[in-house]
Amino acid sequence: MKALLIKNYIFFLILLLSLIFAIFCIKKLANFYQNKNHISNRKSEYPVLDVIINRWSSRAMSGQEISDQELMSLFEAAKWAPSPFNNQPWRFIYVKRDSLKWQDALSLLYPGNRLWSKDAAVLVLALSYKYSGPDKKLSRTHSFDTGGACQNLAIQGCYMGLVVHPVEGFDYEKTREFFKIDPNYDIEVMYVIGKPGNPESLPQNLRKLEQKSSRKTIAQFVFKDEFNDKI
Amino acid sequence: MKALLIKNYIFFLILLLSLIFAIFCIKKLANFYQNKNHISNRKSEYPVLDVIINRWSSRAMSGQEISDQELMSLFEAAKWAPSPFNNQPWRFIYVKRDSLKWQDALSLLYPGNRLWSKDAAVLVLALSYKYSGPDKKLSRTHSFDTGGACQNLAIQGCYMGLVVHPVEGFDYEKTREFFKIDPNYDIEVMYVIGKPGNPESLPQNLRKLEQKSSRKTIAQFVFKDEFNDKI
Repeated sequence: MKALLIKNYIFFLILLLSLIFAIFCIKKLANFYQNKNHISNRKSEYPVLDVIINRWSSRAMSGQEISDQELMSLFEAAKWAPSPFNNQPWRFIYVKRDSLKWQDALSLLYPGNRLWSKDAAVLVLALSYKYSGPDKKLSRTHSFDTGGACQNLAIQGCYMGLVVHPVEGFDYEKTREFFKIDPNYDIEVMYVIGKPGNPESLPQNLRKLEQKSSRKTIAQFVFKDEFNDKI
Repeated sequence: MKALLIKNYIFFLILLLSLIFAIFCIKKLANFYQNKNHISNRKSEYPVLDVIINRWSSRAMSGQEISDQELMSLFEAAKWAPSPFNNQPWRFIYVKRDSLKWQDALSLLYPGNRLWSKDAAVLVLALSYKYSGPDKKLSRTHSFDTGGACQNLAIQGCYMGLVVHPVEGFDYEKTREFFKIDPNYDIEVMYVIGKPGNPESLPQNLRKLEQKSSRKTIAQFVFKDEFNDKI
């Protein structure tokens, strides 16, 4: 009787240890998977701020809301970009997923982008005012300046642990009609923004894209004293 | 005799304390001066990364060189910006002040900008390739994307304590000729980059500009659900 009790005891002990070992292995694997998706392919030639090299355009989102406070911090970041004569040509229209306009705004995206953008918390359309100064001179830099403001927004979002994905795969003309945007403004890009989700929830072809992309080397896009591009 | 020693001792103690107090005052004044020039006018409505709100376009530079290591970290930052299909349309040409081309490159700037840019360490011209994909389709976002890459560069430079000042006040046509830039590329802006200098060395009219500018409020450039710009 006593021998049987000891045998059972040892059996349960082995079971418990196996369970702990299995959990340990799963955690290690999950870590490996995460590292694979979030660090792979990014090699820095020179030292650079973490938030710049870690920013990337993920697609996996959870469908959770983001707070107005969080959203406003993104616009706050955009606000401090530079522009000639402090023109600040950037404008943003946002539609949150609790808005009556959510489904219609989502349908402006091309079908391939709708597949993953449906789990976003907010869509943000970036526009630029094309003129500058009191004499409304055509600005050379309105798109460029708005690109700078948007990069601030994306960096701030990455720092806050959000998915901030710029998209040009949407119907620009329908979007202009939908939001009644007059011709004084250029439509730049749409930002798909949300809380990170599980990459496993994405369709197979998008799951493969769920890793940080690489870049050209500096020697391929930077030239000393003279222009010498090989394209 | 003993009384005299004590008197001398007290005298030196007072002198030492006065000296410490004077150093304390000078430091406070220096801080006040720095804050006046570097923090004034910037009020954040919502929390945002320090490096984003602290970046600004100063003009006071010292004429010191910057190392190639430092310069390459700026391009490293630019590298990791997003672009559709990872096109990376940004290109940079740089001319350092020890280059034979320095004076000629500097003369591309309009006279008002030459006044302060002469004390820079390097001029960086930002270009964008206008097409994308194997069928060379005109890109909608090449200027916008390059604006993003340049904002990375500016943020990295600010973080490293450099002056990184974007300028559109230069002769775009002469610049195209000077660097033999073919029409497949748009000229975006010129960056004037250097080590910070003493604002007192600037001409009076530029000294007044040597403070951080303010911005519109979020309510003036962000719209919920529908576009409603008041320009």
